[in-house]
Amino acid sequence: MSDAEFRPEARAPRGFTDKRAADLRAERAILEAVSRVYERYGFEQLDTGAFEYADALGKFLPDSDRPNEGVFALQDDDEQWMALRYDLTAPLARFAAETWETLPKPFRRYAFGPVWRNEKPGPGRYRQFIQCDADTVGSARPEADAEMIAMGAEGFEAAGLQRGDYLLKINNRKLLNGLLATAGVGSAGQKLGVLRAVDKLDRLGPDGVRLLLGEGRKDESGDFTKGAGLGPKAVEAVLAFVQAGAGRGQTLDRLSNVVGGSPEGEEGLEELARIDAALNAMGVGAERAVFDPSVVRGLEYYTGPVFEAELQLTTTDEKGEPVRFGSVGGGGRYDDLVARFTGQTTPATGFSFGVSRLAAALRAADRSLAEAGRGPVVVIAFDQSQMADYFAVAGELRAAGVPAEVYLGTSGMKAQMKYADRRLSPAAVIIGGDELAAGTVTIKDLDLGRELASQVADNAAWRAERPGQQTVPRTEMVAAIRRIIGS
Amino acid sequence: MSDAEFRPEARAPRGFTDKRAADLRAERAILEAVSRVYERYGFEQLDTGAFEYADALGKFLPDSDRPNEGVFALQDDDEQWMALRYDLTAPLARFAAETWETLPKPFRRYAFGPVWRNEKPGPGRYRQFIQCDADTVGSARPEADAEMIAMGAEGFEAAGLQRGDYLLKINNRKLLNGLLATAGVGSAGQKLGVLRAVDKLDRLGPDGVRLLLGEGRKDESGDFTKGAGLGPKAVEAVLAFVQAGAGRGQTLDRLSNVVGGSPEGEEGLEELARIDAALNAMGVGAERAVFDPSVVRGLEYYTGPVFEAELQLTTTDEKGEPVRFGSVGGGGRYDDLVARFTGQTTPATGFSFGVSRLAAALRAADRSLAEAGRGPVVVIAFDQSQMADYFAVAGELRAAGVPAEVYLGTSGMKAQMKYADRRLSPAAVIIGGDELAAGTVTIKDLDLGRELASQVADNAAWRAERPGQQTVPRTEMVAAIRRIIGS
Repeated sequence: MSDAEFRPEARAPRGFTDKRAADLRAERAILEAVSRVYERYGFEQLDTGAFEYADALGKFLPDSDRPNEGVFALQDDDEQWMALRYDLTAPLARFAAETWETLPKPFRRYAFGPVWRNEKPGPGRYRQFIQCDADTVGSARPEADAEMIAMGAEGFEAAGLQRGDYLLKINNRKLLNGLLATAGVGSAGQKLGVLRAVDKLDRLGPDGVRLLLGEGRKDESGDFTKGAGLGPKAVEAVLAFVQAGAGRGQTLDRLSNVVGGSPEGEEGLEELARIDAALNAMGVGAERAVFDPSVVRGLEYYTGPVFEAELQLTTTDEKGEPVRFGSVGGGGRYDDLVARFTGQTTPATGFSFGVSRLAAALRAADRSLAEAGRGPVVVIAFDQSQMADYFAVAGELRAAGVPAEVYLGTSGMKAQMKYADRRLSPAAVIIGGDELAAGTVTIKDLDLGRELASQVADNAAWRAERPGQQTVPRTEMVAAIRRIIGS
Repeated sequence: MSDAEFRPEARAPRGFTDKRAADLRAERAILEAVSRVYERYGFEQLDTGAFEYADALGKFLPDSDRPNEGVFALQDDDEQWMALRYDLTAPLARFAAETWETLPKPFRRYAFGPVWRNEKPGPGRYRQFIQCDADTVGSARPEADAEMIAMGAEGFEAAGLQRGDYLLKINNRKLLNGLLATAGVGSAGQKLGVLRAVDKLDRLGPDGVRLLLGEGRKDESGDFTKGAGLGPKAVEAVLAFVQAGAGRGQTLDRLSNVVGGSPEGEEGLEELARIDAALNAMGVGAERAVFDPSVVRGLEYYTGPVFEAELQLTTTDEKGEPVRFGSVGGGGRYDDLVARFTGQTTPATGFSFGVSRLAAALRAADRSLAEAGRGPVVVIAFDQSQMADYFAVAGELRAAGVPAEVYLGTSGMKAQMKYADRRLSPAAVIIGGDELAAGTVTIKDLDLGRELASQVADNAAWRAERPGQQTVPRTEMVAAIRRIIGS
């Protein structure tokens, strides 16, 4: 090879990871389960390309004011800037704007696939991950939001979570907006400051948030964070709002007391009431979805109801430490995203599953629906001149639906058995001289072998007895293997 | 919205396309069928990230001598160049080199997903497309190549092609190499010239190829293409070789006459003989796979057997013109790709399905296994105050496994029926005042309606009769819908 002198280092780029079969099975099981839920709700699949023009992506990346920050961007040969999609919503908005006239409306689409974020990689923090979204474009009805919540709940259960393992929390941006309008707070910057303060309720408690809503807060290290600058009355109103508690009917009543009176707040309350009614009609009770005014959800583009799905189950890691997975999905209403292209407000709402985190949680809680990975039956390559026989045997097994392969390396028996063991093969098939002469095959039950090896102290004894090994007529091979794998 | 003044044009980047549900169903059906074949042969799934470091991708892009040409590349914030993968083989080579010590060997992996090529887009020529590959790394046995061919054949049939619709053509780079060595042709440049000339056999015929193997050829427009510069004897030997015809046993005999004698040629013949034996053992006959010395297959990295899958079926386009799809997959042995990283030759062989072209061919030949896309049952939103009822009805249908949705736009009855029609819904459910009072639902069979509408000339008459419309007790709704959709 001409460039043998230069040897690149074999490594994946920073923040990108190689996924092996077990992870992929878990991921596919989720995507298939959630896709079926989406399709049952009348959503059709759409797949856009990896790239969008940078101007079409806009500046909607979370926590970023500059366009292109946080995305992988490059210039095409016609000098237009393109960037890899950072979510599945921005491409949908572009697609909907481009094809609006020809779409059946409301347009219900689901999509799944990788998205890319050009962020600093770290442990467990990847720059490519899988999203799985459903969105309804062209419906302003709160019932469309309710459907997103119902699909979220159903999707989690279809993927393997049990009721009680997850909770969907619902808020409405209009409630806080209405409250702030009543309090005379109008600037977008101040509103953003309020959202940021409220988002820290879990971490800082009401007293910390009170400071951040007002003049500001000095943390333990002495660093000062400037506050949203609300007056004392507005501060207390916001605190009363976010602490109204999580629930359904009663929470709505309490929220009504806090934000009622302002037109936008009333509108938000009316929407939540209709979401409540639709959820009840679809059988989604308070054990699956609640209103919770402390939910902020980061993306700036939300304009109404927002949803956040939290895992409730606590698992332990290898060291026995409790692990909380937190958010495994969410979404909300974004009525302005298509308008970026068309100038016309187009109501839209959506839900997105955090597939990778959900897969990790399902595995940790032992609730993944993915089948355990089994290796193929390995036909031992005993004698080079008999390869045709081995291939015929493997072909018979495959024709019977049993994954099977002929060992194709050059190692001897022992290494071949070790290979089969590492592949988690249920069985190995051995055809030596005796077997060939007698028209038989020897089948080694590797599961049984593994089990016995872990139990029996005297290795030499069970080796001599050859447990789990049987010799059967060639014509009975498929049946014997089937008994071993229980199919 | 702050940037309302600037309205980006809603368009996908050049060479990227949006795929709708029907296309995606067809693609998924192929990927699932082929994945099952790969798994039956003992291959495990692997998914690498979209990016590789540019040095790891190397300069193996077809028809390109410069690194990075033809790929989408960008510089990471640590100034390393990364590029989107242009196939699934280069990332596998990197992965295998990186993890070689820990892998069960031979390592059998399959993979599918998008790959990207930064080429000039054109009609039907995309810059992102789906590949679906299987590779065995760590086996030099020709039987590993035979397995690739068998999986190719089985994969095509699993995806919906019939025997005779496709043909796998097999060649071995070593045959021509041996022949050229005997003829005293040794330089890599001259060999490449020979491959390029041979590749034009279909288009230019033997006389044209004869010129290109020798001094060169002037085409109709007067342009001169410099030839490979072989002497007359070598030219005739190459022509005799590539015209040895396609077949199995007899072709091997003929090839033996042409290339026998040179050590590399003999090695190549021995490999093909073993491939022949393994294919016979796996039941893959000459109607599915043949040796054909005219197959070149572009990629420079192949070192031994190469495979090319050609669609044999001819379909017609909308204008009645015959369409030939040509190559729908292929692969071969590449023993040097992992060595780029490790310095050690690591034998490897693989097969790749051209998923998009196969999907197009299956559709054109009406052989796709993808289910026809049906829309959901649409529950008509008749009365805003009864939304809860509509959602309960849709929920009942979904619980019974029937895709269903409540219409969530704001249009009237007529537009709602039109919407259901455009979604290809099998039925619409109407619950008006009468139905509510009587505890019934009215179900409109939209398939029947479509059928009748296309047959009956007197529209007014069948409208009055309301064909395909029935009113049933609410409790019998699911059963009535099931009768309509035949589930």
